[in-house]
Amino acid sequence: MKLAVVGGGSTYTPELIDGFARLREELPLTEIALIDPHEHRLELVAGMSRRMLARAGHQAAVHATADLAEGVAGAQAVLLQLRVGGQAARDVDETLPLECGCVGQETTGAGGLAKALRTVPVVLDIAETVARHAPQAWIVDFTNPVGIVTRALLDAGHRAIGLCNVAIGFQRRFARHLGVAPKRISLGHVGLNHLTWERSVHLDGQDVLPALLAEHGTEIADTVGLPERLLHRLGAVPSYYLRYFYEHDLVVEEQRGKPSRAADVAAMETALLSIYADRAADAKPELLEKRGGAFYSEAAVALIASLLGDRGDTQIVNVRNGSTLPFLPPEAVIEVPAAISGAGAVPLAVDPVEPLYAGLISHVSAYESLALDAALRGGVERVEDALLAHPLIGQASLAADLAARLVAANTAHLPWARS
Amino acid sequence: MKLAVVGGGSTYTPELIDGFARLREELPLTEIALIDPHEHRLELVAGMSRRMLARAGHQAAVHATADLAEGVAGAQAVLLQLRVGGQAARDVDETLPLECGCVGQETTGAGGLAKALRTVPVVLDIAETVARHAPQAWIVDFTNPVGIVTRALLDAGHRAIGLCNVAIGFQRRFARHLGVAPKRISLGHVGLNHLTWERSVHLDGQDVLPALLAEHGTEIADTVGLPERLLHRLGAVPSYYLRYFYEHDLVVEEQRGKPSRAADVAAMETALLSIYADRAADAKPELLEKRGGAFYSEAAVALIASLLGDRGDTQIVNVRNGSTLPFLPPEAVIEVPAAISGAGAVPLAVDPVEPLYAGLISHVSAYESLALDAALRGGVERVEDALLAHPLIGQASLAADLAARLVAANTAHLPWARS
Amino acid sequence: MKLAVVGGGSTYTPELIDGFARLREELPLTEIALIDPHEHRLELVAGMSRRMLARAGHQAAVHATADLAEGVAGAQAVLLQLRVGGQAARDVDETLPLECGCVGQETTGAGGLAKALRTVPVVLDIAETVARHAPQAWIVDFTNPVGIVTRALLDAGHRAIGLCNVAIGFQRRFARHLGVAPKRISLGHVGLNHLTWERSVHLDGQDVLPALLAEHGTEIADTVGLPERLLHRLGAVPSYYLRYFYEHDLVVEEQRGKPSRAADVAAMETALLSIYADRAADAKPELLEKRGGAFYSEAAVALIASLLGDRGDTQIVNVRNGSTLPFLPPEAVIEVPAAISGAGAVPLAVDPVEPLYAGLISHVSAYESLALDAALRGGVERVEDALLAHPLIGQASLAADLAARLVAANTAHLPWARS
Amino acid sequence: MKLAVVGGGSTYTPELIDGFARLREELPLTEIALIDPHEHRLELVAGMSRRMLARAGHQAAVHATADLAEGVAGAQAVLLQLRVGGQAARDVDETLPLECGCVGQETTGAGGLAKALRTVPVVLDIAETVARHAPQAWIVDFTNPVGIVTRALLDAGHRAIGLCNVAIGFQRRFARHLGVAPKRISLGHVGLNHLTWERSVHLDGQDVLPALLAEHGTEIADTVGLPERLLHRLGAVPSYYLRYFYEHDLVVEEQRGKPSRAADVAAMETALLSIYADRAADAKPELLEKRGGAFYSEAAVALIASLLGDRGDTQIVNVRNGSTLPFLPPEAVIEVPAAISGAGAVPLAVDPVEPLYAGLISHVSAYESLALDAALRGGVERVEDALLAHPLIGQASLAADLAARLVAANTAHLPWARS
Repeated sequence: MKLAVVGGGSTYTPELIDGFARLREELPLTEIALIDPHEHRLELVAGMSRRMLARAGHQAAVHATADLAEGVAGAQAVLLQLRVGGQAARDVDETLPLECGCVGQETTGAGGLAKALRTVPVVLDIAETVARHAPQAWIVDFTNPVGIVTRALLDAGHRAIGLCNVAIGFQRRFARHLGVAPKRISLGHVGLNHLTWERSVHLDGQDVLPALLAEHGTEIADTVGLPERLLHRLGAVPSYYLRYFYEHDLVVEEQRGKPSRAADVAAMETALLSIYADRAADAKPELLEKRGGAFYSEAAVALIASLLGDRGDTQIVNVRNGSTLPFLPPEAVIEVPAAISGAGAVPLAVDPVEPLYAGLISHVSAYESLALDAALRGGVERVEDALLAHPLIGQASLAADLAARLVAANTAHLPWARS
Repeated sequence: MKLAVVGGGSTYTPELIDGFARLREELPLTEIALIDPHEHRLELVAGMSRRMLARAGHQAAVHATADLAEGVAGAQAVLLQLRVGGQAARDVDETLPLECGCVGQETTGAGGLAKALRTVPVVLDIAETVARHAPQAWIVDFTNPVGIVTRALLDAGHRAIGLCNVAIGFQRRFARHLGVAPKRISLGHVGLNHLTWERSVHLDGQDVLPALLAEHGTEIADTVGLPERLLHRLGAVPSYYLRYFYEHDLVVEEQRGKPSRAADVAAMETALLSIYADRAADAKPELLEKRGGAFYSEAAVALIASLLGDRGDTQIVNVRNGSTLPFLPPEAVIEVPAAISGAGAVPLAVDPVEPLYAGLISHVSAYESLALDAALRGGVERVEDALLAHPLIGQASLAADLAARLVAANTAHLPWARS
Repeated sequence: MKLAVVGGGSTYTPELIDGFARLREELPLTEIALIDPHEHRLELVAGMSRRMLARAGHQAAVHATADLAEGVAGAQAVLLQLRVGGQAARDVDETLPLECGCVGQETTGAGGLAKALRTVPVVLDIAETVARHAPQAWIVDFTNPVGIVTRALLDAGHRAIGLCNVAIGFQRRFARHLGVAPKRISLGHVGLNHLTWERSVHLDGQDVLPALLAEHGTEIADTVGLPERLLHRLGAVPSYYLRYFYEHDLVVEEQRGKPSRAADVAAMETALLSIYADRAADAKPELLEKRGGAFYSEAAVALIASLLGDRGDTQIVNVRNGSTLPFLPPEAVIEVPAAISGAGAVPLAVDPVEPLYAGLISHVSAYESLALDAALRGGVERVEDALLAHPLIGQASLAADLAARLVAANTAHLPWARS
Repeated sequence: MKLAVVGGGSTYTPELIDGFARLREELPLTEIALIDPHEHRLELVAGMSRRMLARAGHQAAVHATADLAEGVAGAQAVLLQLRVGGQAARDVDETLPLECGCVGQETTGAGGLAKALRTVPVVLDIAETVARHAPQAWIVDFTNPVGIVTRALLDAGHRAIGLCNVAIGFQRRFARHLGVAPKRISLGHVGLNHLTWERSVHLDGQDVLPALLAEHGTEIADTVGLPERLLHRLGAVPSYYLRYFYEHDLVVEEQRGKPSRAADVAAMETALLSIYADRAADAKPELLEKRGGAFYSEAAVALIASLLGDRGDTQIVNVRNGSTLPFLPPEAVIEVPAAISGAGAVPLAVDPVEPLYAGLISHVSAYESLALDAALRGGVERVEDALLAHPLIGQASLAADLAARLVAANTAHLPWARS
């Protein structure tokens, strides 16, 4: 069983490798291809990965290559975890919107749009190569903005599923609060990628969310950065990405006084690479915990195991809406529980969504369709339209200003913006 | 043919009377009941109304009364044009949100919510009296927020239609630009009350909107207070209420430097009342033009004439969505062209709505359902939820702050807020 | 104002001409082109038409031609009233299904499918010529099966509206029962062409259907050929085409003992043509009353007058469903009240349809989409599928048998069936 | 773990017991309550059941009682397998419609309606008792017509799921053809209970239906009693209940020459009871194979195990539609794959349904809602409406005749029909 990781030279990769080692019984990999154009970094990461697998006694071969076609050939699954433009581009996503009074975040608002513009064409090129050299492979997309990227892949006809670690993070956290094994917890998770609410938490078939909020409301509110009172009123737990909406101005204020997350991560990456360069290092460094992306390997292993093993169990992924949320178009991509089998991910029916959530979901989903259009066809006016359609922007002069700045700052990554 | 005007003591009434006089062939009224609890003001307005009708040679009797049941008895149509709390309450709607950085407007955003909270219960009481004393009468609601008030009336089972002068204003303006009779113009008007776009302008069956924008784009953009470039890009004309969304921050800045519209109107009302008190005055004063509400009488006369005369023609009104906009719930109220006959208003099918508009419409419609819930059931937390659901508010701390202030400032008008 | 009639050589044409003469104020025609490949018959009909117009003092020129392009050039409206294969093909539609125990009717069931197979390609060819030579013209389709033909025209992008005389027939009949002018009656007509129910009858805005059924139930039941008890139970009036469903076996029995309608009409046509050949004849012959198609000219004149005069009034036509009946696909064609203006026909919203009607409508609409597919792409298996999808056939062996027979009997008219 | 079987005195029960014994690891029962008012038969069946369990070394206690409340108290799951009126009533269902030229079947057409009328009120009474004495228990309904009965239970607020053995039968059969373990097969099963099509057959994630039809088409066609040619044309496998639609007249002819299935089963029951009376008998008799209901125990064990064990896997059951099939109302009950967990059954999204199936599904679903209405509210006219709404009846005189006969023949079981 061969798995390919596009963007395998990321400093994050050892986290994935650690998961593959721990979960080898669930997913018995025999080959892991790490694919990355940054050959020096790739070499360091691949070396570290081999030592980690060796220490764990895992037999899988690690193949490092800059050649995408070679890397994906024969793979049954391809993970996408790339970052077009690296931390430098992310730094722009996080700081430029701030100058206009808007939240600076690489997946939400103006920053998320910039990332979509850079990422969608690159991912579609990669997927074309996958389709040619590993036509049966499942493409699992971690690359943000996952909702838009997944829709781009599905629209182009690829065997793709989008994956995020928000849901698994809640599952683990709630299990810890309840003192039970995570697999006994099922989430009533609904929305779009990075715009989700947990409306129920089932333990052995009973909804324990009311009890969970009663006993652990303070900690949960703390984790998502929202007033505990709000969670009690909603009777639901918004993801921490909803903080960018529900506490937008507060976040802007906080962000203004701090270095960007990109700057933090860039520093962390330098430190991680120097650890990976140490030929004696063979254990996941603690620093990696702060890198983000917790439980991604668990989620990815479970997803791939169910796809390849045709397990038919329920996992939370990004899939086509179809008629699941009747207030969204069928072609929209949503993040909900789905049955995962060899035939792919099929969303489960969802209880009617409350207006308080449905209104915002509709608004952001409409933005996503315009963002995808801008990413595919280019043009500063399409960028402006997408920004005008976003509930966190929504103003004409602001959209014009931000569109001009974002395009100018990303010219290197937007072929249509050059000339 | 008897017509009753609830809120008939408004200084605006002579505008209506002027219309009834001009359009007597379309709507041959024999009795006009002006109903208002402010008896002194009502007396002045009724006197002025009688002199205006006499000057025009119109035979209709004007009956002034503070007794609602007596006033509506036997009426075929009842116009609602009341303002709970008067200009003083409006002043709060327009200034309080500004203190929190939000637009101050009596129909949009936090101000619109406050007005809905005050107005819905009063209007429902009035409608009950109408149902008892004039069970066949059509209730035509001008009272803002028209979308929410109309939905409240329909949910309670009343024969009600909501009416706004935005659409007729565009029809008259476009006709003037084109040099044609207004009745030859049909608008592709879609959205919610005070959240609408003109997507087409048909003259004798041909869409002349592109030509209209090409030749008169500057003036039209000026009227709606939006960048001309935006109108060309959209290929559509947003109503000027969309300026509160599309240029929110700019409006806030402008509003901060100026007296409220309520203060202006209060001054104007004093001046108008002194004119009405003049027993020689029998012509509509020029000052009334600045009072707002242009063409309301035209719109109302046309609507009532079609309802009572079973004309089956097309007019733009506020009606139940049904399956017209499939992305909204059937019970939502929308503002679109409808066929008006003796059986009421039936919306015409609408071309699929672009995501740029549909996203915002969905968001605001969800807010409206929560606003109505807050108005009917009360409670500061429901007010908070409605504010959190509004795209112009949408933040938790802000919603909590605004909810507390709005409720406090409106206690006199909110029975549930006292105790 | 020029109007072209494709199939103008029909013996029915003088009925149309009579209407144009009577309704000249509503539709001031200056030229009528009668187009037909049967030149001899066309000559007789055109002569009769000219004499009728002359007698009525109508100035319109009648132009008779076998050349479609010439005939339609410059027309503002084109009526389609052709019959591919003439009464001979109709005779097959009416008798062949009977041999298999199915109703023999030229618009319903197997006969309707055969007619659709013959007609759709011919009508699409004609519409192409219209699009080239009279690109602004409205195509008004009378040609049956109107629902399927209209959908074919709309799918191909033509400016087409389907028209049937069932609704206007009910309006006239109910008006007569009530002793009022027909224009005061509005029907709550819903369904598909030849599969409709009147769910309400509004007179000046009040639903008088209950009273109408109470007082005239016996006559109405007689007209539609259904048990009066059924009408009372439904509280609605099915069209007489529903007799083919609601009394299918009884109709089969009746039909078996009688000559086909095609045979009757063929005899009538011979008689009519001999009248038309009489150069002294200048009045609509009484015999024409029995020819069918009553009030078609009234309906057509009203429709064209509203399209060309941009009247915006309500008429019952065949249009795209969109979201009007949410249980049907948007691309389906339905028969409902619509607002008719220069921009075309826009369906009005419809109250939720009762399951008793919605189930049958869904079933027949699904059949219609398969019938259209068979007509466009050919193949005996597609014909079989369409028959299997029809609620009056619905059996596999029967569908196979009927498909083979229908295709064999219509080979002359089905290019794909030859070879 | 206690399970209660309502109708436990059925001769079919030993089939269930055999399954519980074989599948004890999946579902470790400790108590089985057999509940039946026919105490003598119950005693025979309970004795046989105890001997079978003893022979298999299964520890579960078998408790036989005529007292429903006592029997269900403390149960985690309650199976409903009753038959109101027994084989005598079934005989009427199967023979009375034949006299009117309609198929005689106890779940489809007029017979199915009669069974629904008898069964729904009884099942609702039982469910009330379950709700009082075992409020956490899941009600698994086998009792036909499963779709209508399940909807009745859900409408009344019960924790109910409908189960049928058609899907599991196909799974087992296809697995046998393919020579693989059944659990590797997933069906693309869609429709309503007893009105379903298999549109895909996935083996380890690949659709093998085309290959299956190519290699085993003849046998499969034979099993479902339909022409092999039809299956190839559809590229799908209809259930054998669709034979009552697709070969209606042929079935009527066959049925006319044969004793009813009820008569056969009655004879078989006598034979089975004499076996059960034999105190030496402790193995499932071969004769039981012919009794029908194959694999029901497998399906029931899997369903209950997933409900109680919160497994989250995919099984085919009868559930609320919600927005799954957008052409049906949300409250309809459909039969599709669903994720089964402690929280119940949640339908998975379904690919758009072809018109050939969707038309018939819509029609029958509309009938089901009228059938349920007739069962709940009674009245011969409601029975008539339901029959008129059924695609296999659909005629007014026929519906009137059948309604009168069915009600008369079932008076003993229809309280509203007596007086």
